[in-house]
Amino acid sequence: MGAGLVAWALADWVQVGGAGSLGGAVIRTFQKVGWHVTSADVRAGSGADVDIVLSKCHTPALHAEQILDGLPGVNAVVHVAGAWVGGAIHKKDVLKNAIAMFNINTASALVAAHVASHSLLPGNLLMLTGALPCLYPTPAMLAYGMSKNSIHYLVRCLVESELGVKVACILPQTLDTPSNREAMPKADTTTWTPVYHVAERIVDWAEDPRTVTQGAFYAVVTEKNRTIFNTVDPKDHF
Amino acid sequence: MGAGLVAWALADWVQVGGAGSLGGAVIRTFQKVGWHVTSADVRAGSGADVDIVLSKCHTPALHAEQILDGLPGVNAVVHVAGAWVGGAIHKKDVLKNAIAMFNINTASALVAAHVASHSLLPGNLLMLTGALPCLYPTPAMLAYGMSKNSIHYLVRCLVESELGVKVACILPQTLDTPSNREAMPKADTTTWTPVYHVAERIVDWAEDPRTVTQGAFYAVVTEKNRTIFNTVDPKDHF
Repeated sequence: MGAGLVAWALADWVQVGGAGSLGGAVIRTFQKVGWHVTSADVRAGSGADVDIVLSKCHTPALHAEQILDGLPGVNAVVHVAGAWVGGAIHKKDVLKNAIAMFNINTASALVAAHVASHSLLPGNLLMLTGALPCLYPTPAMLAYGMSKNSIHYLVRCLVESELGVKVACILPQTLDTPSNREAMPKADTTTWTPVYHVAERIVDWAEDPRTVTQGAFYAVVTEKNRTIFNTVDPKDHF
Repeated sequence: MGAGLVAWALADWVQVGGAGSLGGAVIRTFQKVGWHVTSADVRAGSGADVDIVLSKCHTPALHAEQILDGLPGVNAVVHVAGAWVGGAIHKKDVLKNAIAMFNINTASALVAAHVASHSLLPGNLLMLTGALPCLYPTPAMLAYGMSKNSIHYLVRCLVESELGVKVACILPQTLDTPSNREAMPKADTTTWTPVYHVAERIVDWAEDPRTVTQGAFYAVVTEKNRTIFNTVDPKDHF
């Protein structure tokens, strides 16, 4: 299983999966422009102004309670949790992995969305993280694909939930993280996305949510160290 | 939470969620045409020829092991498990319910698919059960919608998994079951689908899998006690 366990993100008041690679970049970028950042993660040491450490033994419901306890109205909720695992339906570990991926990817996104529904100020940004490859079937990484595809469906549901906030989803391809470099030492990394490219865009969007298209899915595509965020219609990629 | 806990289905050798209402109908219909039925369910008393009782305390991986233990090549695997629960993202119970729905609906479908990948004979039928409303966003029944939408994605992945079997998905609207009648005593039941309509169609398909379109999603639509099974393209309903 990849690095980066449960981790997601609020903002003046961001909450991030601070201990992950993308989470760390999001926290530092928000702090650079003067935001007060709250992070919640199963690992400590995010560098956030408030670092909520969640127990892996607790349920998502308890995680949400712990985060919401004393939390004021916040100006952004950003979910950047995630882990990856490969494997097709016939593999011995697929059922165990499906549960792990659901907990790490999908349930943490649900916690972020639930927290947002109770704390995010009107008109502000709830940003979740999906995955570009999981707009399509992913038979070779079934558990991962199901968990991320489920986040895409969650986003579609949230848009219709009358929360009075901006909801959007980023769809990275491959992030340039230490764990991905370790896992794929021979890969061509010129199309990998530096985490700061994503972090800077998220912070720009959080600072001016009017620039975010409601319900948008933003494919994150990097070429020659330049990253663009294209809105895509999942229907076209189904 | 609705009736019908974990439950799914094999055949000559069918395996069904025998203890549920649809499961029971599927078992009896298979038996009527001479199939030897194996059922696996967390509840006993399915009436199947072989009744595997799974422990609610065991993981999906252990359930799959228990089912596969001694199982010969089978001629159909039919997943008819399911439970329902309502509730939007801000509800107190949504996180607990999301886990319950994942376990009851999605994980049981994954168990059926995993079992099929190891036991289903080439060219034979793997049939999973989705839900017609969950082709669209379901903000008012978020946990249920996510669990069923995830099954739809699973089906798309299975079609590309080179299993050498027929894979399809039925999409019921509302089944005419005792628990639905109890939950909605004042509902118009003329559009509800009698479980035997579904059971008979599944058995027809299992007897001649060539009549099943690979990867098809069959919307189950009932009007005036007549039920039709229309193939739908989820993309058109996205």
